[in-house]
Amino acid sequence: MSELRPRAAGLAPDLPLAERLFAELRARTADASGAGVTRMSYGPGEAAAHEIVYREASALGLTLETDAARNLYLTLPGAEEAPRLVIGSHLDSVPRGGNYDGAAGVLMGLSVVSGLVATGCVPPQPITVMAIRAEESAWFSSSYIGSRAAFGRLAAAELDTVRRAGDGQQLGAAIEAAGGSATAVAEGLAFLTPDDIAAYIEPHIEQGPVLAHRGAALGLVTDIRGSRRYRAAICTGAYAHSGTTPRALRRDAVVAVAELVSTLDETWQRMEADGQDLTVTFGQIATDPAEASFSKVAGHVGFSLDIRSNAPSTLEQAEAELRASVAQIEQERHVVFDLGPRTFTEPAFMDRGVIAALHRAARRAGHEIGEMPSGAGHDAATFASLGVPTGMLFLRNLHGSHNPDEHMDMADFQAGAEVLLQYCLDPQAPSP
Amino acid sequence: MSELRPRAAGLAPDLPLAERLFAELRARTADASGAGVTRMSYGPGEAAAHEIVYREASALGLTLETDAARNLYLTLPGAEEAPRLVIGSHLDSVPRGGNYDGAAGVLMGLSVVSGLVATGCVPPQPITVMAIRAEESAWFSSSYIGSRAAFGRLAAAELDTVRRAGDGQQLGAAIEAAGGSATAVAEGLAFLTPDDIAAYIEPHIEQGPVLAHRGAALGLVTDIRGSRRYRAAICTGAYAHSGTTPRALRRDAVVAVAELVSTLDETWQRMEADGQDLTVTFGQIATDPAEASFSKVAGHVGFSLDIRSNAPSTLEQAEAELRASVAQIEQERHVVFDLGPRTFTEPAFMDRGVIAALHRAARRAGHEIGEMPSGAGHDAATFASLGVPTGMLFLRNLHGSHNPDEHMDMADFQAGAEVLLQYCLDPQAPSP
Repeated sequence: MSELRPRAAGLAPDLPLAERLFAELRARTADASGAGVTRMSYGPGEAAAHEIVYREASALGLTLETDAARNLYLTLPGAEEAPRLVIGSHLDSVPRGGNYDGAAGVLMGLSVVSGLVATGCVPPQPITVMAIRAEESAWFSSSYIGSRAAFGRLAAAELDTVRRAGDGQQLGAAIEAAGGSATAVAEGLAFLTPDDIAAYIEPHIEQGPVLAHRGAALGLVTDIRGSRRYRAAICTGAYAHSGTTPRALRRDAVVAVAELVSTLDETWQRMEADGQDLTVTFGQIATDPAEASFSKVAGHVGFSLDIRSNAPSTLEQAEAELRASVAQIEQERHVVFDLGPRTFTEPAFMDRGVIAALHRAARRAGHEIGEMPSGAGHDAATFASLGVPTGMLFLRNLHGSHNPDEHMDMADFQAGAEVLLQYCLDPQAPSP
Repeated sequence: MSELRPRAAGLAPDLPLAERLFAELRARTADASGAGVTRMSYGPGEAAAHEIVYREASALGLTLETDAARNLYLTLPGAEEAPRLVIGSHLDSVPRGGNYDGAAGVLMGLSVVSGLVATGCVPPQPITVMAIRAEESAWFSSSYIGSRAAFGRLAAAELDTVRRAGDGQQLGAAIEAAGGSATAVAEGLAFLTPDDIAAYIEPHIEQGPVLAHRGAALGLVTDIRGSRRYRAAICTGAYAHSGTTPRALRRDAVVAVAELVSTLDETWQRMEADGQDLTVTFGQIATDPAEASFSKVAGHVGFSLDIRSNAPSTLEQAEAELRASVAQIEQERHVVFDLGPRTFTEPAFMDRGVIAALHRAARRAGHEIGEMPSGAGHDAATFASLGVPTGMLFLRNLHGSHNPDEHMDMADFQAGAEVLLQYCLDPQAPSP
């Protein structure tokens, strides 16, 4: 389709650049506690990361653009005026998180582009490295803020109602404070349109243990789980003396919530045995420290619930089982559940054509990559949901994510960057 | 056995005295928050209550004595130098508790003695109203402190190791601060000996809903449940991403503790169906607020467990089931339980002879009383365990105990005092 320039001698991803920027990112966004990094969405840590990336892209002579939500676009022109290839990920982190979650994708894009620039190699189509804002919902309890805003898809109401954990700042005000325009975001001004994008590729550390268990450096994502989340559910019973209140007269909130946890765990086991993709997590549970006592039946338990699946029908079924369990336990245990506000994301499937192209690119780079689902949400879900051909390249990660011990080997990063470079040179090229 | 003086005209419990002292107690020990009363063990509220009772007993001309632990003994001499009848309860309360829990028993004893004094009626044996210290284990995590000390049965080590909730004061230091002698308590100096006591009667509000459900003013206690308590148990698993960690690789502390709660609830149901007396209460449960998140599998859950029964063999069986469940869940869920320190009290049975005498006294006073177990612990357990013939008279209580809404009707108090007066006049007297 496109005419390639002859492949330059020494063409390779710019690993020294990536190593230098990882070190600078870690140093400039270290958490005050000394543990891990903190790059608050629309906060100082994220701003520092954007500044670093902007500076480097400028030095490479890339075209620099931002949108109303302050996403950053760093573009290397292609040989043709064709729809662009976007390589992106986010630069924020959870509080006291790891240095690679998000940043690895942006720096991999930059290292590939820097390799092309260094050798004067012009890709067939424009390549845009995108640094996305506000992906970590630890800060704002809303998903994919930056990528949705890039397509003009952030609901205007979210700008007022969604507030940042910790300082309580409104999302709209935070965007303004970072130099963006909440008004333009609210009006749905789109910087990206699906038709202008040939493909979106998001390199990202895996946030689970699957690649490490496989002994594999890389993975190609088949789909991204959607979620149904209840972050502030409550079960109300009645406080009573632990020694004097007969079983039949109890309204025990701890026993009720325990039964819900156990029942949904059995539901999960059964649905998984039926071949359905599902995770069920009660990550938080607590009696009221001011009222509960070892010698009182508990009258109040707060808890959170996170249900995920790659299939909308499975999410629906799990929620139906949740509602049925709640109703039955309410009747049997004389308690009342209030599941509270519900947030959600929809599952997204990666593009089989993109996956196949990445497999071919991997073979050209001398790597073989297995496939896997993504249990965690990623901005790639936004692109896929809007019809952009989308792929994700996972990098092996030890010690889990969202914690200071998250770990990525630069050798794995290099392998991923080599695959990405091959893909950028010609997405349509065959296997060797 | 003894010669009674002719029954004086107008002989009745002194209800105006009780009403006046309840009002003074409430006013002088009101919690600073405005909710309920707070009479801290060996603290200002308990001291005020002892001062009030001491003053009134002095005005009645009773013999006034204290022991090394600052329990207070108010004695009306009897017609004979016989073993004394002790009517007692405690004057401390839980934080923001009710006005009647404990105090009702002491004031009922005083109102009966005042009635006798007012009419010049001399009982066959000495009657000692005992105001006991430090019964509420909300303050010091040790049971029956005052009554055990009265018999020289407080372990010396407790004086150093047991500390008061809130201010952390050592028990021994608190006794000294209240004017007692920690040294004498540590040496086991006994003020009471079982042989010198004809019987111990403890009037007390019921701390559960049974009498209210029966529509009965009074109840006679058959036995007091013992307990096995784990106030600071921990389950440790591993934190992990809620979306990316497969079921098989999880070490979920919430699911593990929920399974323990559900399993022990089934154990309780089964043992109760077998006719065993048992309560099982997980009153507190909590993930770590600093680490847990709605999107993380929980790696840590703290919880408390309170097991009670009137039968040592049932307590033993319940604990065996607890250990078996813990071992099984540890293996299945890849978690580790640490049940932490264990405290306990032994069950105690009330004396059938005393119960029969109280039934006869009730009939003479025109009341009919049913029997019931006590799920809560009381100082009466100390007396019973040492071989003192012991009885407990329960008063109907609405709205539970250990809270500001605890409620007792003076009409119920009057009925109880009439029964107690009849008993004091002659424990051996037949039914009318």
